[in-house]
Amino acid sequence: MKSPNLEHPSKKSVSSPNHKSCVETKERVRYSETDQMGVAHNKNYFEWFEIGRTEFCRKKGFSYKDIEEKGYFLVVAESFCRYKKPLTYDEEISIRVYLRESSPRKFIFDYTITSLQKGHVAAQGYTVHVPTDKKAKVTPLPSEIYKKIKAAESQREIK
Amino acid sequence: MKSPNLEHPSKKSVSSPNHKSCVETKERVRYSETDQMGVAHNKNYFEWFEIGRTEFCRKKGFSYKDIEEKGYFLVVAESFCRYKKPLTYDEEISIRVYLRESSPRKFIFDYTITSLQKGHVAAQGYTVHVPTDKKAKVTPLPSEIYKKIKAAESQREIK
Amino acid sequence: MKSPNLEHPSKKSVSSPNHKSCVETKERVRYSETDQMGVAHNKNYFEWFEIGRTEFCRKKGFSYKDIEEKGYFLVVAESFCRYKKPLTYDEEISIRVYLRESSPRKFIFDYTITSLQKGHVAAQGYTVHVPTDKKAKVTPLPSEIYKKIKAAESQREIK
Amino acid sequence: MKSPNLEHPSKKSVSSPNHKSCVETKERVRYSETDQMGVAHNKNYFEWFEIGRTEFCRKKGFSYKDIEEKGYFLVVAESFCRYKKPLTYDEEISIRVYLRESSPRKFIFDYTITSLQKGHVAAQGYTVHVPTDKKAKVTPLPSEIYKKIKAAESQREIK
Repeated sequence: MKSPNLEHPSKKSVSSPNHKSCVETKERVRYSETDQMGVAHNKNYFEWFEIGRTEFCRKKGFSYKDIEEKGYFLVVAESFCRYKKPLTYDEEISIRVYLRESSPRKFIFDYTITSLQKGHVAAQGYTVHVPTDKKAKVTPLPSEIYKKIKAAESQREIK
Repeated sequence: MKSPNLEHPSKKSVSSPNHKSCVETKERVRYSETDQMGVAHNKNYFEWFEIGRTEFCRKKGFSYKDIEEKGYFLVVAESFCRYKKPLTYDEEISIRVYLRESSPRKFIFDYTITSLQKGHVAAQGYTVHVPTDKKAKVTPLPSEIYKKIKAAESQREIK
Repeated sequence: MKSPNLEHPSKKSVSSPNHKSCVETKERVRYSETDQMGVAHNKNYFEWFEIGRTEFCRKKGFSYKDIEEKGYFLVVAESFCRYKKPLTYDEEISIRVYLRESSPRKFIFDYTITSLQKGHVAAQGYTVHVPTDKKAKVTPLPSEIYKKIKAAESQREIK
Repeated sequence: MKSPNLEHPSKKSVSSPNHKSCVETKERVRYSETDQMGVAHNKNYFEWFEIGRTEFCRKKGFSYKDIEEKGYFLVVAESFCRYKKPLTYDEEISIRVYLRESSPRKFIFDYTITSLQKGHVAAQGYTVHVPTDKKAKVTPLPSEIYKKIKAAESQREIK
C-alpha cells in the first residue's frame, strides 16, 4: 500500500489557495536568478519555498530561527517542484505555503508560486521535513514547539 | 489511471548504478554551498543534477550547448530530490546520471549523488524535461538530435 | 609607502546616507544565503547590490528591464565590497544605493548595507558599469535613457 | 584630479601568472551560473575565487577545513573583481590564486580567471581576509598554521 503523502503533489495534494490555512509572501525575481534561457532558473524555486516557510513560521507564532537556537533542525528530506509557466526578471511573485501534514517526526509543506502580473500559477511543489537535534539525529520536537506547528495545520487562512 | 512516470522515483525508478547506462561526474562541495546547518543546502543538489546532465550529453556525443544554439531548449518541467545523508564542505561527490525515459516530447533523467569519502548514497532524484523552441513553445526535437539522445537510453555504462 | 592599489576604495567615496540622493530597499537574509560560518556568505552582498540597483532605477523613473528590452545592457565592469559586520539568518537589512558618477560610457553606484535590528553598517561597496549593445560592444546609451539616469545623480534623497 | 578611491586596485597588484608562486584550479561555467545576458553572472566570480583558495590551501599543505576545525576562520573583509571579458555556459576556466601578502592578522589573495578556450584573461580580483576565533573576534592564527601560510607566499609556482 502506498501512503497518501507519496501521491504526486500537484495531482491531489497541493491545496488550492481557498480551502486551507496558508501564508503568503511576496518576492520579485532577481536578475541573478535568471539564466541564459531568460527565465528564473529551476533551483530558485526551492529558495522561494524556504522564504515562504520562514514567513509561515513567523506568522503562525513561532520563529524558525528560535527552533534552531533551541537545538532543533527541520532537515529537508525531500523536495519537489512542478514548473508550469516561466518567471522572468523583476516579475512579482506570490509564494503561498500550506502545512499539509504534521506529526512529531515529519512535516510536509505544500507551495504554490503565482505570477502577480500575469495571474497564473507558475509552479507548485512540496517539501518533507524531519526534526533532528544538533548532531543530525532524528528527534521528535519538544511538545511546546510541536503544538504550535500542529495548530498551524488547521488554522484559517491569515493575511 | 496513474502513469508509471509519476511513481515516486526512489521507490522503483531510480536506477541502481550497476544495471543501466550512466555517466558519472565528480565535484567537491563548495564553501558557498554550505548553510548554517553546516551541510550543503538543499538547492545545490539541483545544480549538481544539471552539471551531471551537461556531462551526460557531452559523453553521449551531443552537447547541450549545441542544442540551444540550434534553437531548442530542454526546459525543466519537474524536479525531485530525496536527501538521505548530509554532505559537508570540501567533500568529494559523484553525480551519476541515467536517462530513464525519452520520447520526442519528454525526457526523464535519474540521478544518484554519492559521497566518495564515505561511500554511501547522499541523495537521489529525477528531472523531467520538455523540448521547446526559442519562444517556449513545446516542439519535438529534430530527429538528428533526438536519435542521439534516444541512443543514450540504451547504451551500456561508460566511464 | 603604501601602493595605491591598497587604498581602501570606500574610504572616501562611499557616500554617507545623509548628504546625497539615494534609494533604499529592504530585504531579509535568506537561510540559503548563510554558510557554515553561520553568517551571510560574501557573494550575496553583490546580489543585494543588484536588487538595490533595480529598485534605484524603478524609483528614479526608468526600469532596468526596459533598458535591456531596448537592446542595451549595463554590464558590470568592477565590483567591490568591504564587509564590516556579519549578517545572520532572518536579519532585516537596508540596501541604500547612490549614483556616484555617470557619463554616457560609465556609471558608478555606491552601496551601504545596514542591519536594521542592530543599527550598524554591515557592508559598503561599489560597482562600475559600462553600457553595451546586445553584442557586448561598448555603446553610449541613447540620450533619453542617459538623461534620466543623469538626473538621478543629483536628485535629493527619496523614500 | 582623480580621487584615490578610483584607482584600479588590480592595476599593479594582481600578479602576472609567471613571476610568483600560484595554484591553478579548473572549472566549467555551470548553466545555473549564467544570467539572461547569456554570460556568467558577476557574483559567481567570488565563488570561483573561493574554490581557488580552497585548492591553494590544499596544494600548499594545509586544509582550510582543518583551520576551521581547529576553531579559526579566515573571514572575508574585502572582495574585488574586475570583469574583462564575459564567460559563457560550459566554458572551461582556469582560476589562478596567489598569496600577495600575509601577516598574522591579515591575508591578501590575488586571482586571475582565464578562459581556457579563448586564451584571454576574463577577470582579475583580490580578497582580504582576517583571522578570527569562533566568536568572530579577530585573533592571530596559531603559529603552526601561520608558518605554513607564510611559506606559501614565497614558494615557486607549483603544478
